[in-house]
Parts: sequence; C-alpha cells; structure tokens
Amino acid sequence: MDYSERLQTLLSEMKLDGRYRTFAELERIAGEFPTALRHRPDGRTQRVTVWCSNDYLGMGQHPDVLNAMHTAIDLSGAGTGGTRNISGTNRQHVALESELADLHGKEAALIFTSGWISNLAALGTLGRVLPDCAIFSDALNHNSMIEGIRRSGAERFIFRHNDAAHLDELISGIDPSRPKIVAFESVYSMDGDIAPIAEICDVAEKHGAITYLDEVHAVGLYGPGGGGIAERDGLAERLTIIEGTLAKAFGVMGGYVSGPALLIDVIRSMADSFIFTTSLCPHLAAGALAAIQHVRQHPEERGRQAANAARLKAMLADEGLPVLDTPSHILPVIVGNAHLCRRISERLLDEHSIYVQPINYPTVARGQERLRITPTPFHTEDHMRSLVDALLAVGSDLGWAAVPQVA
Amino acid sequence: MDYSERLQTLLSEMKLDGRYRTFAELERIAGEFPTALRHRPDGRTQRVTVWCSNDYLGMGQHPDVLNAMHTAIDLSGAGTGGTRNISGTNRQHVALESELADLHGKEAALIFTSGWISNLAALGTLGRVLPDCAIFSDALNHNSMIEGIRRSGAERFIFRHNDAAHLDELISGIDPSRPKIVAFESVYSMDGDIAPIAEICDVAEKHGAITYLDEVHAVGLYGPGGGGIAERDGLAERLTIIEGTLAKAFGVMGGYVSGPALLIDVIRSMADSFIFTTSLCPHLAAGALAAIQHVRQHPEERGRQAANAARLKAMLADEGLPVLDTPSHILPVIVGNAHLCRRISERLLDEHSIYVQPINYPTVARGQERLRITPTPFHTEDHMRSLVDALLAVGSDLGWAAVPQVA
Repeated sequence: MDYSERLQTLLSEMKLDGRYRTFAELERIAGEFPTALRHRPDGRTQRVTVWCSNDYLGMGQHPDVLNAMHTAIDLSGAGTGGTRNISGTNRQHVALESELADLHGKEAALIFTSGWISNLAALGTLGRVLPDCAIFSDALNHNSMIEGIRRSGAERFIFRHNDAAHLDELISGIDPSRPKIVAFESVYSMDGDIAPIAEICDVAEKHGAITYLDEVHAVGLYGPGGGGIAERDGLAERLTIIEGTLAKAFGVMGGYVSGPALLIDVIRSMADSFIFTTSLCPHLAAGALAAIQHVRQHPEERGRQAANAARLKAMLADEGLPVLDTPSHILPVIVGNAHLCRRISERLLDEHSIYVQPINYPTVARGQERLRITPTPFHTEDHMRSLVDALLAVGSDLGWAAVPQVA
Repeated sequence: MDYSERLQTLLSEMKLDGRYRTFAELERIAGEFPTALRHRPDGRTQRVTVWCSNDYLGMGQHPDVLNAMHTAIDLSGAGTGGTRNISGTNRQHVALESELADLHGKEAALIFTSGWISNLAALGTLGRVLPDCAIFSDALNHNSMIEGIRRSGAERFIFRHNDAAHLDELISGIDPSRPKIVAFESVYSMDGDIAPIAEICDVAEKHGAITYLDEVHAVGLYGPGGGGIAERDGLAERLTIIEGTLAKAFGVMGGYVSGPALLIDVIRSMADSFIFTTSLCPHLAAGALAAIQHVRQHPEERGRQAANAARLKAMLADEGLPVLDTPSHILPVIVGNAHLCRRISERLLDEHSIYVQPINYPTVARGQERLRITPTPFHTEDHMRSLVDALLAVGSDLGWAAVPQVA
C-alpha cells in the first residue's frame, strides 16, 4: 500500500496555508549573543541578530553556566545511562530539585527532560489518580497542558482566557465534592499577557481546588528572586503547584514542577513519561543550578531586559507598528496573514540579517499570525533601531497594511 | 478539599506491594565507570560497582564524546533558547540527523529530547494522519510505543509477543484497504530476547503495512556499523522506520526516528510533542554525533561487551542462579517477588557495594520481578566474580529459593 499520496497532500495543504515550517539553521556563538551565524540553504553563512529567542537573559552563554557544565562533564561524564529509578539519579539532580523547591517556596520539586513533559506528566497523573477529577483549563493554555489534561482522562472545562468570573461560574456548576484542578499560565507565551493570579486563586480556594500554574515564560524574569509572577505578586504560597522550565530564562533544557511533597511524590511514582525516560544529563542539572543561583542573586539583568522591552515597545509603537501593549517582556507584532508573516520574516533575514521566526497556526490561531519579538539584556539601541527600520522597509515593500507605505 | 488521604493511600499501597521506588543517589565518576560514588541516605559516600546501567559501552565517559561536548559548549553555549522552529535549529542538530539517517540507511532522521517522545511523536502522528489506520503492536512493546498508539486514536491490535503467525492472523482479519502499521522492538529491554524481524517483515509486506522498529536497546551494539539488529541481519531496508536512542549505547540523551523523508517530514510538521519542545542542546547533539562516529569505527568495544555478557551468563548459570538464556547483552535474573527483589538489591548495595536496581511492576508484570544485569566492556572478571558471590551470599541469607541455601 502506498501512503505517499495522502501524506504528500497533507504537506501540500500546509504549504498552501503558509503553515509549512522551514527551520533556519543557526550556529550560536557563545559570547556574542544575540548574534548568531546562519547557515543558508545556498551553503553560505551570514551573521544575524536573533530577535526571537527564549534564552531571555542570555544565560545560555553565561560563564557561570558554561563553567558548571564543563566541570560536571569532567567529573561525571555525559549521560546517566538510566531512568531516574535505574541508575539515573545523580547528585546533581538532587541538588537542582532542592534549589527549585526553594526558589518557589515549595516542599519538593521534580525535574523532567522538557517543560512539555512536565505538564504532560503532572496534569496527566493528578487528573487520573484523583477520582472523578474535574480540570478547569484556561482557553489559551499551552499545548502541553492540554495534552496532559487529555491524557488524564479527567473531565475538562475550559474557562475564557484570564476570566476568573467565568471560572467561578463553571466551577460552581459541578458537584462540590469532586476533586478539582485549576490549570493556567502566568505569562502567556504568544500574547505576552499576564493572568489575574490572585482572582483565580480566590475562586479556586472558595471551591477547594488545586491550583496549577505554568510559569515557563516567567521563571528567572519576575520577582525579587526570579521565582516568577507568583513570587513578584506575593502569591506563590497560594499556588499548589508551580511548573517551570530550565530551557528559557535559565538557558539550558528540561522542565520541572514544584509543590507539596506528597503531590510531587505521586507524580514521581506514577507518571509513565517520567518513569520510562532516561534522566537529564548531570551536567545539564549542574548548569541549570548555576543559572538559577546566578539569577537569584542578579536582578539587574532582568531589570535591563525589562527596560529594553519597554524601550523597543515604545519605538515600535511610535512608528505605528501594530505591537500589542503587553505587560511582559514579550512583544507580539500582529501581521494576521500566514503568507505575509512568512514573507516579512524571510525578507528580514535575507536582506537585513534580522531573524524573527514567523508564528503561524497551530502555535497561534489563524488570523493571529505574528512576529513575536523578545528583547534581551544584550540587545542594544542600535539593534533596536535596525529592527524597527527593517520592519518599516520590508513592510512598505510588501504592502503590509499596518505600515506607512512609502512610494 | 483535602486530597491528601487519597494520595497517601495510593503511595501506601505501592509500599505494601513493593512497588514504591527509592532512587539511589549516585555520582558518576568519568574515567572509572562502572564504578560510581553512592551518596547514602545517612550522608556517607560509598564506592559501588554499577551493574544496571544502559550506558552499555561506557560512551558516557568516552573522551571523544566529552571532548566534542566541551568544544561545542565553548563554541555555542548551553541551551538553544527555542523550539526547532523558533531559533532552536542548530548546525549540530542537522549534522546529527544526517549521521543517523546514514547509520540506518534511511533518507532522513529527526531527533527528540528523549526516546519516549520519539515513540509518542512518531506513532502518535502517523496513526492519526493515516485515515482509519490500524496499528498492530507486540504485546511487550515499551510504554512509550503504547502511549504513542493510544495518542494516535488509531485502532490497536495486540499480537502475541514475537509471534508473526498471530500478527498475520490479526492483520488478515481487517479490511485490506486500511492503512496499517506494525510496531515492535528488536531487543526487548526486560527479557533481553530478540524479535523475528524477517518473519514480521514478511507478514507486513504481504499486507502492505508500514513497519516501525524500536531499536533503543540495540543501536550501537549490533551490526557491522552498530546500526542495530536490523543492520546485523541485513534487514534495515525492510523496515520503514527505525527508532533509536542517544541515551544508552551512545551515552548522551535524546531519541530519534529515521525513515523515508516524506514520513519524517510529516512527523516533523505535525507532532505536537516535537513542535512545542525546546530543542536538544547543541553540545548534546555534538556529543552524540561523536559517539556514533566512534561506535561505527570501533566494533571491538561491542565485541568485548558481548564476550563479557556471555562470560557472566555462564558464571551465573554455573552457580544455578535463575538467569534467562537470552540472545542479547541483557541478563535478567528472575526473583518473582517484589519485596524479595528489593531486599536482595538493598543488601547487595549496602553490604557488597554492588548496585543492581530491582525491576518491579509496572516495568515488568507482577510475578516477573527481577534483577536486570547489563555487563559492559568495562566490567572485569573480578567484578563478575564479586557479583556472583554476592548474589549467592545474599540469596542464601534471605532464603531466595533459587539459590543453594547455606546453613
């Protein structure tokens, strides 16, 4: 049987829709972030400025992190050779979990090979083991939370994005004796908006629900110790579980959950995706630990990042570019058409050496296609001016309606 | 609402069953494998011999691998800061995928953050996009394949373990026009037995089914180039997709699939667990690439491993220990009782400085609890003698029926 035709059709549809993704091949250059080398399809290389990285603080090149990794490799080698249970728990994992629990003021933490797996494992397990559990999920929750909820088999209720009143309405409608989980994010990745955490906790507490907060776009960036929005707003103790990542502001890879020791032990003991996976390399845990310790001690870097985000947002708005007025470090510039979004990105890259990947469906809804711009402490005023000028030039050239058209 | 009682009960049941897992805290020592430092619960440390690692060739400490990682960290830093699509594709990923495709004689390959995700993403996607797909799954397939099949929503048929005739019977019973996938493993992790790949391919080809082979416990270890059992038996081209891992014989972490460019592109384009995950750190890809290149050039290491496995199996059998007569490097010693299995393991560790984690449910069926022993090229005759003597002493002491009892 030949499946090729069916699969070819699928890919052709994606291409017609502008949804087919072409990966830009980069070579990161430690010490020069946000500059990277692009390996072009024609074989040539090109120095580009990266404007779409989630290495928000450049910790992926920080000497503390790289030194910790080098040292741990010399000490303990590369992989662990096992799942956490079968020879794969190392001293570095235990130290990192202890630091993460402390960062969020929780009893315990558990690390995973990715944030995606953290959400799958935690929500998938808790929703499954609590009998007749109901999970209340923000309408814009990340794919990994949706997958975890689906995997759990629990009944799912979707509340309107950031709408605590709607959550209250839904949660009031079910049997009060059922176990309940309210799952939401602090900073939403693609819109850059922030949840009304206190209001959502009010509702959850009124109904005795577990609260599960995804802070992957906030850890390392907000709060006096970089613990995230919940820490910044003094709300961390009202969240049952805080989920985070080691792969964005902490510059390495992997994900985690922190929370009460009992819940963390249940996830550790029962989540298939955790049980059956080789553990994170020890040196990655060591690098992440160094990043967290650095970030906790150095609020000035996230201060520079916030200042740069504010500065760039003002520059974009001043030129009439359609940047969302977000309360976070994420600056979405809405294009609203997949093909145009891709063409703008290609022109920025090829002609202006500026790399901003187009964000199309399924990462955002159709009609919401955008350039998602993430300033870091390492982007300079010159970088920003070049970006704005390039957006104006390319936009004008391509007839992007939001941009002043130059003859 | 207080969920504690329900969750406490769950954990208590696991403890009563002997299923509750306690992780041994290790500190790997590069250059001394299979020796590691154990951090004991009482705070002291203890040098132990690891007998249950999947770092089958010790590549996790090989200088080629560690040097490649050091170099790549100096060049490109720690994490990528993005998904493969959003600034997270690096030169090292592209080079590794090219090497993996070549290793298996396939058109293309795609890497993931773990083998668990490889199976979830690949089977989950192919089973979903092929309309009315039927997936035929070996009864002992790994959890990650089962999860991928479940996630796909395709109809699942389970054939008896390694039974090509039963597969033929099941596959003959469905509408011949339906798309079909046959999913199985080459070396089964816990029993160490090997699939009749040619017979299964005969059946699959007769019915026009896609073949999907998990070779995670075979890549690097079998075949003239370390391509796995399919390569060893000259069957690689009969497999549509070969899935493997970077975390066992290649000593690092991550997983992959290799196969026809069209299928790999479909998985790349449509698998949520791939799309929404930060990519593997570039230096991990560089380390894995170095490991594969080394292993392809150095069959003598897997030769030493095979010789050690044969030697230890004979020693165990000579003493009457219940080791399965497997055709692979995996030596399961059956205990058949969760509590006894755990106690044997604890005594080996505490009193003999030998680390073999007990394998209990859900990793194996109840009643099949075992010690799973994995000799490497670095285990010496002395290591083996000590292991056998310790098993006899502890077994006799604990009244393990399989062991000659000494007064």
